[in-house]
Amino acid sequence: MIVSRRQFLEAASAMPAAAMIGSAMSARSPDLRTEHARLRRQLEDLSQFGRPAGGAFRDGVSRIGFSEADVSARAYVMRIMRESGLAPSIDPAGNIFARREGIQPGLPSILFGSHIDSVPNGGNFDGPLGSLAAIEVVRVLDAHDVRTQHPLEVVVWANEEGVAYGKPLFGSRATAGQLFEGELDEVWNGVRKADAVRAIGGDPDRITAARRAEASFHCYIELHIEQGGTLDRTQIPVGIVEGIVTIDRYEATVTGLANHAGTTAMTDRRDALVAASHLTLAVNEIVRDQAGRHVGTVGRQDVVPNAPNVVPGVVRQTIELRDLSSATLVRLAAAIRERARHIADLTGCEIAITPLSHNEGAAASPAVRRVIGDAAERLALSSHSLPSGAGHDAQSMASLGPIGMIFVPSVGGISHSPQELTSWEHCGIGADVLLQAVLGADVSDIRA
Amino acid sequence: MIVSRRQFLEAASAMPAAAMIGSAMSARSPDLRTEHARLRRQLEDLSQFGRPAGGAFRDGVSRIGFSEADVSARAYVMRIMRESGLAPSIDPAGNIFARREGIQPGLPSILFGSHIDSVPNGGNFDGPLGSLAAIEVVRVLDAHDVRTQHPLEVVVWANEEGVAYGKPLFGSRATAGQLFEGELDEVWNGVRKADAVRAIGGDPDRITAARRAEASFHCYIELHIEQGGTLDRTQIPVGIVEGIVTIDRYEATVTGLANHAGTTAMTDRRDALVAASHLTLAVNEIVRDQAGRHVGTVGRQDVVPNAPNVVPGVVRQTIELRDLSSATLVRLAAAIRERARHIADLTGCEIAITPLSHNEGAAASPAVRRVIGDAAERLALSSHSLPSGAGHDAQSMASLGPIGMIFVPSVGGISHSPQELTSWEHCGIGADVLLQAVLGADVSDIRA
Repeated sequence: MIVSRRQFLEAASAMPAAAMIGSAMSARSPDLRTEHARLRRQLEDLSQFGRPAGGAFRDGVSRIGFSEADVSARAYVMRIMRESGLAPSIDPAGNIFARREGIQPGLPSILFGSHIDSVPNGGNFDGPLGSLAAIEVVRVLDAHDVRTQHPLEVVVWANEEGVAYGKPLFGSRATAGQLFEGELDEVWNGVRKADAVRAIGGDPDRITAARRAEASFHCYIELHIEQGGTLDRTQIPVGIVEGIVTIDRYEATVTGLANHAGTTAMTDRRDALVAASHLTLAVNEIVRDQAGRHVGTVGRQDVVPNAPNVVPGVVRQTIELRDLSSATLVRLAAAIRERARHIADLTGCEIAITPLSHNEGAAASPAVRRVIGDAAERLALSSHSLPSGAGHDAQSMASLGPIGMIFVPSVGGISHSPQELTSWEHCGIGADVLLQAVLGADVSDIRA
Repeated sequence: MIVSRRQFLEAASAMPAAAMIGSAMSARSPDLRTEHARLRRQLEDLSQFGRPAGGAFRDGVSRIGFSEADVSARAYVMRIMRESGLAPSIDPAGNIFARREGIQPGLPSILFGSHIDSVPNGGNFDGPLGSLAAIEVVRVLDAHDVRTQHPLEVVVWANEEGVAYGKPLFGSRATAGQLFEGELDEVWNGVRKADAVRAIGGDPDRITAARRAEASFHCYIELHIEQGGTLDRTQIPVGIVEGIVTIDRYEATVTGLANHAGTTAMTDRRDALVAASHLTLAVNEIVRDQAGRHVGTVGRQDVVPNAPNVVPGVVRQTIELRDLSSATLVRLAAAIRERARHIADLTGCEIAITPLSHNEGAAASPAVRRVIGDAAERLALSSHSLPSGAGHDAQSMASLGPIGMIFVPSVGGISHSPQELTSWEHCGIGADVLLQAVLGADVSDIRA
C-alpha cells in the first residue's frame, strides 16, 4: 500500500489543482467496485450467441468472427453499451468503439476493451470478460458520477481469433495500420474478407481510416483470462502481464525412405517417423531443460505415406517456440538444430529445419504495469507478474502507445475449449482491477 | 549336388518305369534354361500398361487391379500365353488360368504364377516377373518337347495388391474360398466390386465356382522378387521362402489434453504427441532388441487437432508386427503394452492399445522348399532360406495344398516404388529356378 499511495500522491500532485476537482481520484474512488452480478448476467446472456444447440453455458461457444453468431453478439454488446449510457459506433474495420468524454480538453483517451469472437468450440471467457467488464467500468463511473480527466474509450475488436481468414487480431491490426497486403481480398468459405467486414458494419473501402495515429491514446488496458495455469496453481487472483511473447515457428522436414513394412529388415530402415519422434522428444527435453518460462511445441505432424504397412518416408512437423526474449528463442532453436544433426546421423534420415514465421511480441509499459499493480494493491489483492504466452489485441496497440494487461485465473489453465472456466469471483475481481487501473492511469503520467 | 542328385534318383526310382519315358526329368532336362532376353522384352512390354505419361520403364507403374491399365495388361499377358501355345481362360473371380496337360492321367496339376496388378507408383517386378516367367517356363518346355507327368497350370491372379477395395489377394482368396461376406457388394470409386470383377471378364454371379478343392493341385510355386534387402546385401541370388509371416496390427490411441501452446506451461502439459513419440521409439527398440527376423512398424500416425499452436490432445497410430511365429508376435505385443504403461505414467496421458487385425501367415511345404533348393543346386546357384515379410497369393493357396516360393534379389531392398529393381540377370535366374523347380516337383512325392 505504501508504494501505491506514494505514487498516487505524486501523480495527484503533478496535476493542476483545477483538474483535481471532480477527478477520478476523488476521495471515494478507491472504494468503487463493479457490479459483479450484472457482469455475470451479461456474460451468461452473451454466451447464447454461438452456443451449441440444446447446450448450456458450460457447453462453450462457437462464435467465429464475422459469423451470424458474431453479428448477433455484437448487436447485444452494443445494446449493453447503450444501456450503460454509451453511444457505440463501428469503425471501417468493424471494431466497436464507444467514447465517454473527460474533464480536460485535448487529452488522449484511455482505451480499454477486448473481443467477443471465439474459436470453434471455445469458451465463454476468452474475450467476453474483458469486453463486458470494460462497459461495466463506464457504467459504474456513471452511476457514481465519477468523471475522469482523460476521455475513456471502450473497444470491442473485430475478429481477434482470426479463425476466419487465418490471420488473428484483424481489428486491432487495422487500427495499428498492420494489415497485410491484399488481406481484404482473401476468400474464406466463399466470402471475400472485404464483404465479411461490410457484413459486420465496417467499411472496407475506407479501411485506412480505421488507422489511429501514434499517441492518440493515453494507454491501452485489456483485461483477459490467463489461459494458462500459473495464477490458478499459485492461487493468485491478479496477473500483471510483463509482455506478450514472441512466437517463432519452424517446419522440420524429416526425410527417410518409404519402404515395405514387411520386407524391410529393421537394420535396413531409414524410418522418418522414428527420426521425427526423436526430434519431438528432443524439442520437449531442450525446452524443459533450460530454466525459464518459454514453451516449445510440436503441434502439427504429418506422415507420408501414412499407411500401416509402409515404413514412413517423410514426416513434416511444426516446431513452435515462445518467449518474451528473442535471444532465448534463438538459443533454443540452435540447440534443437544441433540435436537434429545427431538424430539424422543416428537414424540415417535427413532433417531440414526452416523458419515458417516470426511474430514479434510486445512488452507492456512499465508505467501501465505499475498502474495495474497499484490497482490490485488498493483492492488488497495479491498479484503476480507473468508473460502472456498467447497473442492479444494489446500487441497491435503496443505499436501506437503504452499498453498493459490484467490477467485473471483460468481453472486448470484450460482455454480454447468449452471447459475454459474463470470463477465468477475472479471475473468480478478482474473488472474491479480494470476499473481501478483506469482510474489510476487517468492520474498517471504514463508516457514519462 | 550330392543331396539333390540322391533325391532326384530316389524320386525317379519311385515312379513307374512307363512314366519315365518322356518324363520331365529326361537326361537333358537339368540343362534346360528359360530365354532371358525374351523374358526381359516381355517385362518391358508389360510395363507400358499403367506407365506414367511420358515416362520410361524405370519410372515405374500404376496398374491398380480392375483398372483400365490392368485390363489392357491382362489382354497382353493372354496374348503372350497364346503365343506360347497356351489357351488362357478367365475363371469367375477374374483369375487367368492356362493348362498344359501332363502324361499321366488323373494327376493333379502343378500350379505356378503370380499377379500383374501393382500399387500406385509401384515397380515393374513385383508380380510381373513371376507371371511372365511362368509362361516362359511352359514355352521352353514346349520348345524342347519336354512333357511332364503332372498337368501344368499357369495362373495370373486378379487384384493381388488389393489397392481397389482394400483387401489384398482377391483372386487367390476366391480360389481358396476365403472371400469375406459381402465382399462383392463393396464399392470403390463408385463401382461395385462385382461389377469390377465382371469388367475384367469374371463372373461374380458364379463366384463360388472359382473355388478349388483341397489337393486339386500337386503343389503351388510362385517366383517373386524379395522386396526386402537380405539377398541383395548377402549377394545370394536365390531365396527359398520358409513361409509367409503372420501380421498382427494394433491401433494405439494416446489421449492427453489439447491446450493452448502459448499459455500452457511445460510442466502443465499432457502432450499426446510426446507420449506417442515415446511409444513409437519403444516399438522400434523392443522389436530391435529381441533377436530374430521379426519387424515392427508405426506406419500411420494421426494427430488431433494437428495445429502448430495447440498442444496435441489425441494421437492415433498403428503398430504392425510381423513374424513367422505367432508366439513371437504375442511376446512383442506384451512388451509394447508394458512399456506403454510406463509411458502413460511418465507423460500423464492414457494409452489404449487395441487389436485391429490378425492375418495368419502360412508355412511353405518342406518338400517344395527342398524341390526349390535342389533346383538352385542343379543350376549351381547359392541359395538362402528366409521368411516372406510380405503377403502373397501363395498364402491363400497354402490352405488347399503344399506351397513354395522362390525369391530373387531386390536392389537395395526397395519395393512398391518406381525404384524397385531386380537385375535382368536375377530375373533370368529366377525363371530358370522356377523351371527346374517345376520339373523337380513333377517327380517329387510332395505330399508324402
